[in-house]
Amino acid sequence: MDKAEHSGKLFIISGPSGAGKGTICKRLIEETKVQLSVSMTTRGPRPGEIDGVSYYFTTKEEFRKEIENGGFLEYAEVYGNFYGTPKEKVLEKLEQGIDVVLEIDIQGALNVKTVYPEGIFIFILPPSMAELRKRITGRGSETQEAIDLRLSQTLKEVSYIDKYDYCVVNGELEEAVARVKAIVVAEHSRVSRNIYKLIEKYKEEV
Amino acid sequence: MDKAEHSGKLFIISGPSGAGKGTICKRLIEETKVQLSVSMTTRGPRPGEIDGVSYYFTTKEEFRKEIENGGFLEYAEVYGNFYGTPKEKVLEKLEQGIDVVLEIDIQGALNVKTVYPEGIFIFILPPSMAELRKRITGRGSETQEAIDLRLSQTLKEVSYIDKYDYCVVNGELEEAVARVKAIVVAEHSRVSRNIYKLIEKYKEEV
Repeated sequence: MDKAEHSGKLFIISGPSGAGKGTICKRLIEETKVQLSVSMTTRGPRPGEIDGVSYYFTTKEEFRKEIENGGFLEYAEVYGNFYGTPKEKVLEKLEQGIDVVLEIDIQGALNVKTVYPEGIFIFILPPSMAELRKRITGRGSETQEAIDLRLSQTLKEVSYIDKYDYCVVNGELEEAVARVKAIVVAEHSRVSRNIYKLIEKYKEEV
Repeated sequence: MDKAEHSGKLFIISGPSGAGKGTICKRLIEETKVQLSVSMTTRGPRPGEIDGVSYYFTTKEEFRKEIENGGFLEYAEVYGNFYGTPKEKVLEKLEQGIDVVLEIDIQGALNVKTVYPEGIFIFILPPSMAELRKRITGRGSETQEAIDLRLSQTLKEVSYIDKYDYCVVNGELEEAVARVKAIVVAEHSRVSRNIYKLIEKYKEEV
């Protein structure tokens, strides 16, 4: 039995950096009706960024107030700025029957799980550590030492996989995207409270 | 966390008569690698039927012996003949990594669930009782009274839906087939013991 009461579902796409969660998430938004959650941030808008589309822009004071009110599914501080997923905004969409996807790191996903366990948690894995090393090295932005640290960090993070519902190995992108799409479809066929409405309708008909 | 240890998965497609489970099942076998389970029966082979392909043909004595040995995932007696799903044959395929589908009625599915709870149970529903009535009436083989009895039977059966993992409403066949296919793909992405093998491999690599 499914726990969710909302007709829209929340998909959390997570996994180590370099596994390709960003690309998969982008494809999901482009090719299905699933919508990306808009984050709230305290950093200033960059040229072209639109409030409520790129981010919800706010002040540190307001952000801290929201944290105290339990207003975030998850949040983090990065280089002195706060970033968070506003709970209310996400729930509004779910209530309207809209699927929402969050792309976040593993710590963030674990936080979401405590606040919204009805979410569907998908872990994106690289096909091998050798491949992950290749991908990170390819970016050319990190030292060998930093890469080694990153990989050992990844090994630790991967141990949280048993908190997730699904795991998709991103070896071949098209296949990984197809799998994530299949998960979205399948999750809408889960036996849930919604189906009881249909059965009630049956009873009236007979 | 998934319970299954076999790399192949057992899908049980079930639902009331007239919901279209037979058609969906046929399409699944034709269009994916999922294989249909071959039943064992005590009725004699008809012209063209091949032992081990159409059915496993056997005697009533042997069949009863198998029942006593717990050799069936489910079985039933129909018009004096026995029909059953041989457990060993199904498990052999699952161990080889082959997905197997069973198309059975609701009572049969509930029996399979007690023997093999790791199975993935899919309930096929008609879009409405009016539509189900139309489909059964269309076959022209039953009296009005028999149809009424069938529909009230269906209502009772539908109450077992909470024993199932998925529920697919067969209003538009193509959509229903796509949903069942998505379930097969998604179930192979469930976090299961198999994924820990990959993680062990990661550890060796770092």
